Amino acid sequence: MKNFISANDTGDPNQLALHAAEIKKNPHANRKLGCNKVLGMIFFNSSLRTRMSTTRAAYNLGMKVMTLNVSADLWQLEMEDGTVMDQGNAEHVRDAIPVMASYCDVLAVRSFPTLVDREEDYKEKLINSFVQLASCPIVNLESATLHPLQSLADLLTIREHQSNEKSKVVLTWAPHIKPLPQSVANSFAQWMIASDVNLTITQPEGMELAPQFSDGALIETNQEKALQNADFVYVKSWSSYTDYGKIHKAPNWMMTNTKLDLTNNAKLMHCLPVRRNVVIADDAMDSDQSVIQELAANRLWAAQVVLTEILKGL
Amino acid sequence: MKNFISANDTGDPNQLALHAAEIKKNPHANRKLGCNKVLGMIFFNSSLRTRMSTTRAAYNLGMKVMTLNVSADLWQLEMEDGTVMDQGNAEHVRDAIPVMASYCDVLAVRSFPTLVDREEDYKEKLINSFVQLASCPIVNLESATLHPLQSLADLLTIREHQSNEKSKVVLTWAPHIKPLPQSVANSFAQWMIASDVNLTITQPEGMELAPQFSDGALIETNQEKALQNADFVYVKSWSSYTDYGKIHKAPNWMMTNTKLDLTNNAKLMHCLPVRRNVVIADDAMDSDQSVIQELAANRLWAAQVVLTEILKGL
Amino acid sequence: MKNFISANDTGDPNQLALHAAEIKKNPHANRKLGCNKVLGMIFFNSSLRTRMSTTRAAYNLGMKVMTLNVSADLWQLEMEDGTVMDQGNAEHVRDAIPVMASYCDVLAVRSFPTLVDREEDYKEKLINSFVQLASCPIVNLESATLHPLQSLADLLTIREHQSNEKSKVVLTWAPHIKPLPQSVANSFAQWMIASDVNLTITQPEGMELAPQFSDGALIETNQEKALQNADFVYVKSWSSYTDYGKIHKAPNWMMTNTKLDLTNNAKLMHCLPVRRNVVIADDAMDSDQSVIQELAANRLWAAQVVLTEILKGL
Repeated sequence: MKNFISANDTGDPNQLALHAAEIKKNPHANRKLGCNKVLGMIFFNSSLRTRMSTTRAAYNLGMKVMTLNVSADLWQLEMEDGTVMDQGNAEHVRDAIPVMASYCDVLAVRSFPTLVDREEDYKEKLINSFVQLASCPIVNLESATLHPLQSLADLLTIREHQSNEKSKVVLTWAPHIKPLPQSVANSFAQWMIASDVNLTITQPEGMELAPQFSDGALIETNQEKALQNADFVYVKSWSSYTDYGKIHKAPNWMMTNTKLDLTNNAKLMHCLPVRRNVVIADDAMDSDQSVIQELAANRLWAAQVVLTEILKGL
Repeated sequence: MKNFISANDTGDPNQLALHAAEIKKNPHANRKLGCNKVLGMIFFNSSLRTRMSTTRAAYNLGMKVMTLNVSADLWQLEMEDGTVMDQGNAEHVRDAIPVMASYCDVLAVRSFPTLVDREEDYKEKLINSFVQLASCPIVNLESATLHPLQSLADLLTIREHQSNEKSKVVLTWAPHIKPLPQSVANSFAQWMIASDVNLTITQPEGMELAPQFSDGALIETNQEKALQNADFVYVKSWSSYTDYGKIHKAPNWMMTNTKLDLTNNAKLMHCLPVRRNVVIADDAMDSDQSVIQELAANRLWAAQVVLTEILKGL
Repeated sequence: MKNFISANDTGDPNQLALHAAEIKKNPHANRKLGCNKVLGMIFFNSSLRTRMSTTRAAYNLGMKVMTLNVSADLWQLEMEDGTVMDQGNAEHVRDAIPVMASYCDVLAVRSFPTLVDREEDYKEKLINSFVQLASCPIVNLESATLHPLQSLADLLTIREHQSNEKSKVVLTWAPHIKPLPQSVANSFAQWMIASDVNLTITQPEGMELAPQFSDGALIETNQEKALQNADFVYVKSWSSYTDYGKIHKAPNWMMTNTKLDLTNNAKLMHCLPVRRNVVIADDAMDSDQSVIQELAANRLWAAQVVLTEILKGL
């Protein structure tokens, strides 16, 4: 594997999930694979699970890690070409990225969208700049529109709990007090479709995901109808793609135990962080159907299989 | 040792201090004990000695370390159960803590009190949440009311300088410009009493420590009287426990060489950071009686013995 | 090598650059030299290249690393002796530095000048305090007036591209929107002169560097004249030394391809970060004459040779 930016970089997502499941059984088997190798993690935004699980994955492989918080550790970076840099940004990505790459064997990058300019966000300028300008492999720790390490953990968790191949997976929109990126939802859709999962997406009208990621899923604007016979319910808030970055107020879309009762005893999934009693009610969060903690723990194996594949290619 | 939250977790504090003294003689003897093990350090507040000494201790034991500053690296955490999370806190500790634990073998946590609500602070909600919700051992890097790694270093330093068993140890309050936690003083009292040290606590009236930690010590509101025949003088500022979180203005309680002259050539101790010429005068700080730097250096051995005991139990 | 503060600590700068070039050929040859050793990096200011390259260098030598951002991780430090510390600074460097040193085998420190009080800045109080108060070696990661790791990388890069011994090296001032330290320029001049390089410094009148660093160089206020026959052009912005900390507005001093055409096909150097089209025009930045990326990559070997020499002396 050269880079890990989206489902398209994986070959077969199901094979990658299988490999992750094997690593989970024997986490330290490859503890010398990353010997003398350094992972640089560059955070333009906050992170808990991604930061910790990727760090742990690198450690399990014998890598060393260096972590930069762009806002705290260095100055702001310019992304536009040809500008006269007499404003706030003190260094151009064209200069900074090759330098970072020269000190690391793998770079991993997190950078959220602006949620202001859709075209700009969906161009994925920053992560693409890393791919183009770095001499080393790039891992996406959540970019403007995708979060593939999350989606790989999602897929692994579904495969672990799946009793039959034709399981019904429902991705349901949930309300939130702030405009959130579409990245987790986009990426989940992309990975499920690429993995031949039977996917239904349910959201209020106007909250449809970008077609380039959701095409191939069944779309259903009636949440209760969508939940019927679901084997997996993946809850996620996102801001509008069409009325870009706007939030939608529909508190009745919050996930509850009453709604879970409509399903085929579905496993409840969410990527965290979750605002309890806004996105998912306490009763559902704390029910036996929740595999949310398992899913979070699986982030480690997703990160570790990706780093393993990348290290093998170095 | 399962967790390290207070003196109660140590079995015999004196034995632990003895063990720390042995480690100090041969710091790298157990350099493979922590192989493949990861310490996660979670800072809700600033730290210098605790951060550095605990990191070094983990390194000496062959552990890997990951460090999170909650305010800089991630979002704020909710601690109340049942709340509708539509305010500032983006994730509940009930969800975040098990996740952190799933990526680490040991978690260490620093979180200061509010100094506003005494009952809340003395419930030690956050550190107790970690103990209850994490699947791995928890180390207290200073909680709302206690600072046991400091106290263990205090005990080690006293034992190293003690000429006879009946040494008199005096904990004396000192003025400060800001309301400080009672944690170092509470913890010092708890450990000295648990270690059968002859402890006198001196403070102005109204600045008494919480009885659950100070019961068993001799209390003396006359500082000069308390200092007579002292073999060790431990200086510390704290805000009021009774008039909770309030500071007391009594600049004449600052420690000076003149006051040290009242003692039995006592060793001067302070946990640092210290505001010179507010808490302790320069002449006392820089006198031969000060073992403040030794004490700070001993923080490493305190951390290392605790991690050693915890690793042995994994 | 005991400390690495300026060119004066190197013995022969050319020998050190030669040694760096050897390490570059075989980066992992000494991967056990730093076994059980810890590098503490203390950042009072932002850093990208210095932070990453020094961390990588330590890793290549088998060292462990701990990094502190003073503003984010701890409280502010007092540097004046004898003050009543009832203001913002919560700990004195006299107390903090020996403590940091007690947990580390090598300390590396970055701290920029105030650019307000020239005498204070040029006293180099902070880095000198580290040298005086720490029991371990100190590495300068850029101090108020010098940046020796940069200069060593500069020298290495020049030696790699030098076709004859009498190469002409020109350090040229460039405009900037903010007052920048003189440290990179001072240090470059100091190292070039100590290395017997044929150095010309060109700057507008009033922007002369401190004589203690620039004495021995040819000074030329006509930039075009200075650039004639240059083999290396080192571009750098700095604020005024004489009218201390003031910026000079002279946009026509920006480096361009037109100006590079005046040279002997000179290699273009800059330490980064660079504000494109303010300090250097895009055409020059992206020309074949630029060795700016090579120079940045060489920061790693500069850091690694310095840590190697220091570790050998432990």
